[in-house]
Amino acid sequence: MSINKTLVFGHINPDTDSIMSSLVMANLENQLGNEAKAVRLGNINKETEYVLNYLNMSAPELVSDVADGQNVILVDHNEKTQTAQNIENAVVKKVIDHHTMNFVAPYQLYYRAEPVGCTATVLYKMYKEYDVPITKNIALMMLSAIVSDTLLFKSPTTTQEDRPIAEKLAKIAEVDLTTYGTALLKAGTDLSDYTPAQVINIDSKLFEKGGKKFKIAQINTADIDGVFKDKVYFEAAINDEIKKENLDLYVFAATDILNSNSKIISLGNDSGIVEKAYGVTLDNNTALLENVVSRKKQMLPKILENLD
Amino acid sequence: MSINKTLVFGHINPDTDSIMSSLVMANLENQLGNEAKAVRLGNINKETEYVLNYLNMSAPELVSDVADGQNVILVDHNEKTQTAQNIENAVVKKVIDHHTMNFVAPYQLYYRAEPVGCTATVLYKMYKEYDVPITKNIALMMLSAIVSDTLLFKSPTTTQEDRPIAEKLAKIAEVDLTTYGTALLKAGTDLSDYTPAQVINIDSKLFEKGGKKFKIAQINTADIDGVFKDKVYFEAAINDEIKKENLDLYVFAATDILNSNSKIISLGNDSGIVEKAYGVTLDNNTALLENVVSRKKQMLPKILENLD
Repeated sequence: MSINKTLVFGHINPDTDSIMSSLVMANLENQLGNEAKAVRLGNINKETEYVLNYLNMSAPELVSDVADGQNVILVDHNEKTQTAQNIENAVVKKVIDHHTMNFVAPYQLYYRAEPVGCTATVLYKMYKEYDVPITKNIALMMLSAIVSDTLLFKSPTTTQEDRPIAEKLAKIAEVDLTTYGTALLKAGTDLSDYTPAQVINIDSKLFEKGGKKFKIAQINTADIDGVFKDKVYFEAAINDEIKKENLDLYVFAATDILNSNSKIISLGNDSGIVEKAYGVTLDNNTALLENVVSRKKQMLPKILENLD
Repeated sequence: MSINKTLVFGHINPDTDSIMSSLVMANLENQLGNEAKAVRLGNINKETEYVLNYLNMSAPELVSDVADGQNVILVDHNEKTQTAQNIENAVVKKVIDHHTMNFVAPYQLYYRAEPVGCTATVLYKMYKEYDVPITKNIALMMLSAIVSDTLLFKSPTTTQEDRPIAEKLAKIAEVDLTTYGTALLKAGTDLSDYTPAQVINIDSKLFEKGGKKFKIAQINTADIDGVFKDKVYFEAAINDEIKKENLDLYVFAATDILNSNSKIISLGNDSGIVEKAYGVTLDNNTALLENVVSRKKQMLPKILENLD
């Protein structure tokens, strides 16, 4: 792949925000005269597939690493553990994000992160700042990302900026926000094509702190009991990963988008951390976390806090 | 000091950009309804004093550390080695910067950095984005920061964005850009009130890489021979610091703003690095670096590159 064209990508195990924000940011760059191309670092999930089908678009090209000297733009992530291989030999020109930060660059770059619910919320503001028109398709992409990241504004990660922007985008995209949003989230709960090993990797993120390595995986569902019928298969797949990647903890959360709870499987030497963190008792490796739907706000901080 | 009001500050050993951008950012926050106050982490230099006198303003309050839980906004820096003490227990709400990055935050925040010549260039764009009026005084503050950081557009750190913005600001501030800019830079070369130990600390920055600690100090001058009359006193002051702070290298650069060269004193166990980096031979600890005026672009990278 040419290193002249800037590659734009979100995190590994891309979610809807990572894919849509790559496409939306690449379009912004191209509109501003900077040649850029969206790519992806992993498989498209069912929710994202719904958006691509709706727009009759194909998915961005799949890549796993970047060439030495390649110009890249990171969206929806900044940490080394969540990005392309060989990133240390690429040149990060820009970062557009809304996550916690752990970022080092020995050169100046454009870095824009805001404490909002979705990368697309930041991108909407950048389109306005640079006075680049938001087409119907671009609006639907941004809208889909916001609906996905905020669980249609039910997640505590939602900020007061996300909803008004989503409402504006729904108008431009000519869709009813609730109808489209509900259909999108529902599409994301379809696990029928996945093996258990694939389900736990639909949206898993690796974190490291003080020598400890752990993963938190999350899926959305409208049928939590249906998901847990496959519990033993998930456990086997999780234990495989723990062994293969030397993890201290693996938390798999099935988030009930109807009732806003999460049922988890916690495995690994540090699996007990979730008991301390949430005041629950693991029953056969599982527990129900009431009112917990956000990995970023309600899972990651609690686990970091209770890690030795 | 109240932890409710957000404190805005630039780096230790503040230069004109650090002081002016603190004031300009605090004003932006206040205009947006967020209570904020500019403070400073060190003495005001002569150049900054010139701006404050011009505006008949007093310097921001001096602080050295921040309280636990204090909300802060960093301008013109992001690295731990260059900020207030106890920063790890404060809450960084925003960062506005134009430097290389080495930043970690276990929470979401507003981070905006651009690869431009001056923090004030970024702030100008933020005023525009938020549609906050730029008053005559605010314009002069931003302008002064840009003139200072770009050495009136002679430094290679100058980007194509800095000059057009400075020109707009000069109009709002009702000053002639070249006349005001030259007077400002000249004011910054007045060392008459300083002891040698103070001169080397007017604008020194500490860097660390792979266990090595080094400082690069810089002053501007229109009389390089006059400065070097005090060479032995500078050397004594530098050696004191090397000992006190366990430094591997101390580079003191007197930058000739008329001829765009820098004459340096290099001391410490790794003083020879500058010979490798610039193909020069140290003569009695000094060397002339032709066409070198920027610490950020022409000194720091060369030293990092040649550090073992």
